[in-house]
Amino acid sequence: MHLELSSGAGLRSGLETALRDAVRDGRLAPGTRLPSSRALARDLGLARNTVAEAYGQLVAEGWLTARQGSGTRVAPGARPQQPVSTSVALAFPDQAAGTHLPYDLRPGKPDLSSFPRTAWVAATRQAMAKAPHDAFGYTDPRGRVELREALAEYLSRVRGVRANPDLILVCTGYVQAIGLLGRVLAERGGQRIAVEALGFSDTRTVLRESGLATTDLPVDEYGADIGSLADVGADAVLLTPAHQFPSGVALSPERRTAAVEWAHATGGVVIEDDYDGEFRYDRQPVGALQGLDPANVVYAGTASKSLAPGIRLAWLVLPERLMEPLVRQKRFADRQSPVVDQLALAELIVGGAYDRHVRRMRSRYRLRRDRLVSALATRAPGVRVSGIAAGMHVVVELPDGYPSEGELIERAARLGLAVTGMHMYGGTGERGALVVGYGTPPDHAFSAALEALCAALAP
Amino acid sequence: MHLELSSGAGLRSGLETALRDAVRDGRLAPGTRLPSSRALARDLGLARNTVAEAYGQLVAEGWLTARQGSGTRVAPGARPQQPVSTSVALAFPDQAAGTHLPYDLRPGKPDLSSFPRTAWVAATRQAMAKAPHDAFGYTDPRGRVELREALAEYLSRVRGVRANPDLILVCTGYVQAIGLLGRVLAERGGQRIAVEALGFSDTRTVLRESGLATTDLPVDEYGADIGSLADVGADAVLLTPAHQFPSGVALSPERRTAAVEWAHATGGVVIEDDYDGEFRYDRQPVGALQGLDPANVVYAGTASKSLAPGIRLAWLVLPERLMEPLVRQKRFADRQSPVVDQLALAELIVGGAYDRHVRRMRSRYRLRRDRLVSALATRAPGVRVSGIAAGMHVVVELPDGYPSEGELIERAARLGLAVTGMHMYGGTGERGALVVGYGTPPDHAFSAALEALCAALAP
Repeated sequence: MHLELSSGAGLRSGLETALRDAVRDGRLAPGTRLPSSRALARDLGLARNTVAEAYGQLVAEGWLTARQGSGTRVAPGARPQQPVSTSVALAFPDQAAGTHLPYDLRPGKPDLSSFPRTAWVAATRQAMAKAPHDAFGYTDPRGRVELREALAEYLSRVRGVRANPDLILVCTGYVQAIGLLGRVLAERGGQRIAVEALGFSDTRTVLRESGLATTDLPVDEYGADIGSLADVGADAVLLTPAHQFPSGVALSPERRTAAVEWAHATGGVVIEDDYDGEFRYDRQPVGALQGLDPANVVYAGTASKSLAPGIRLAWLVLPERLMEPLVRQKRFADRQSPVVDQLALAELIVGGAYDRHVRRMRSRYRLRRDRLVSALATRAPGVRVSGIAAGMHVVVELPDGYPSEGELIERAARLGLAVTGMHMYGGTGERGALVVGYGTPPDHAFSAALEALCAALAP
Repeated sequence: MHLELSSGAGLRSGLETALRDAVRDGRLAPGTRLPSSRALARDLGLARNTVAEAYGQLVAEGWLTARQGSGTRVAPGARPQQPVSTSVALAFPDQAAGTHLPYDLRPGKPDLSSFPRTAWVAATRQAMAKAPHDAFGYTDPRGRVELREALAEYLSRVRGVRANPDLILVCTGYVQAIGLLGRVLAERGGQRIAVEALGFSDTRTVLRESGLATTDLPVDEYGADIGSLADVGADAVLLTPAHQFPSGVALSPERRTAAVEWAHATGGVVIEDDYDGEFRYDRQPVGALQGLDPANVVYAGTASKSLAPGIRLAWLVLPERLMEPLVRQKRFADRQSPVVDQLALAELIVGGAYDRHVRRMRSRYRLRRDRLVSALATRAPGVRVSGIAAGMHVVVELPDGYPSEGELIERAARLGLAVTGMHMYGGTGERGALVVGYGTPPDHAFSAALEALCAALAP
């Protein structure tokens, strides 16, 4: 039996490692009888006790068996290791994250280079200095009270949400929030949820996985077609009232009222996805739909656009009747969201740093949008930029005679720019349109990205 | 119409707030016609424009409607707010967290007062200084590569896990990990999972919610009865091999081998819950079962005992065939776990602070266990402390003639001590036994808690 003992580690642990390795790579097959501890000790120049202890450890771990009269053998269950196939190693390369292209104007992400790292560390330090010991244990599944109280004040002040800290559920990101809602609706007998025909397909998948069927609501220049809700027999509807994604329109006042009336008349639930409600540039933001009817509208907010998606913090403001079943599902999902980030965000909000960051980003995005609109007006006068002055994306509509969406995406890629089009979000128009996320690049790369976009769109 | 305008805010926003409040509390009923902007401006001594703008904002938000010829009215959808009932406010008081009693020896939590706050803040700062911008976006759903690499090295070194970073899935706590596994097993046709008859009932509930039936495996002094696995027709088995919770025994070498052989023979999956594998006091810890057969054993580890549950970080080391379906479920659950904590933990591990913290806690818990055992030997010589010298709990068996488990729990409560018994974890013995978590109290309270326990158990 050949064993390679590394000289660095202790003798006993070196011997254990060598024996495990020999079993793993198949040199010692299951059933093989090992030398007696006395014999092996002599061979290796070790104390017999060292070998006996190593054998004992490996017996306890199940690598070896020791039976009276049959000596020490390699256990029948020990199997040689199989190498990991490269397919797994390569299956998740920067998924959803990066692009191999130098410039990125795909929507859905804020400028990650602006994440307030220093303020976040400072808030973490402050939170750590204050938090009671119990905060690090299993606490309220709704989330830390410090954060729920801060959010209630913030959402009421900034978004007109009627938020009681008791009715806020902190979630590990928007995907979790929507999945938990889907499960609760399904558990209460719900079968179908209406979603905007234009949007991220992931949301639909998550809702279906949670047990609901989905029906698409057409989207026009007034937002989702609430009028057609009555016909689809939905138990709930998911809307982006402040800023439809990706079309960029706001839900019209009449449809806001109609959505709430639908909920009231049918007992249905309206879910308001307020993903970028803080970012409006031409006027005061339209307040949350939830404020109109908190008994039937679920408000869903997130730090993914205001801070960064990696923080994975989102929140639901719930009608009272949904709180308990949501908490039950939350406990099954992950018991409670991680506390340190919650405490840090509460510090940021209460101390004013969150408002300052949002204001700073608002002027930055507004400036980028202005530059984008004026650059395209000069360099690609044929296209039309649509969508309200809000958020961090615009739709670039393509006039007759222009190359199609797909051709332009390819042309942009050849110029080093990643950009997507309406088809990716359910758009069915023949020409298509580009969806341009001007929030995505770091500041220093925005000019070059915009230049590439103009070049791709030049007539 | 009586409106209370607060003088602090801007006039327009003050008017908006006053109007919303009036609708909310029912003073302005749906359908009510408002004064013209000119009339209201005169009444309130405001510029007409201010009133018109406020009306416009509230129309956009759906509070009011404005139609040619019919003036401005309160929208039909706007509903008065209902106050939150106190039942919701009171439904989740310190759930699972606290006790109203001064001393707490319930198991399941480490000493939260020892959470390394300073080291955590320092690790967060270091992580923030290093992290690429992309880390704050949507990244690999398996978790940050920095953490997966750190864990692979750590788990291999400390727990004998054969861990490839590509096959590690970082989860938002153990409950999520086990729920995702349950879903994947069910999705692949699995119907039944065997679990140890003694344990947390929450785990069973989560597995059932994920779509599996559960069957109890008896637990004796050699751990779970693997021999009975063949009879129950399970597709998977969930075990605590290093330290059964709550009985405190280790799975015997024969049963370790038998578990792996069962998996190999039936295609079943063994899930190894290694919740406190770092804490063994009388000998080197028994290595992970996963090391024996990584193709069929899922290793589940967590920071809940080594650091704190509130961090909500756990990890699965997966057989290759389970990685892709698990990632799919993870994406539906919360897309990826929050990044800042992941990066901080990676820093702690790579920089050695994690090992130092575990060592420090190991000697602290060992000392507490020694004090507990020796105090009971003197003060309550009739009882028998069982379970290997590991983790942060012991079982206190009650001899004939002693009060029952329930009576002792009551007696302890009267002495100010919270403690639980075997019945809470599925124990069926007539006498019962106490399950004492000596890790729970802060250091300064341990002596008093132990004193209370001795008093409760005194003959």
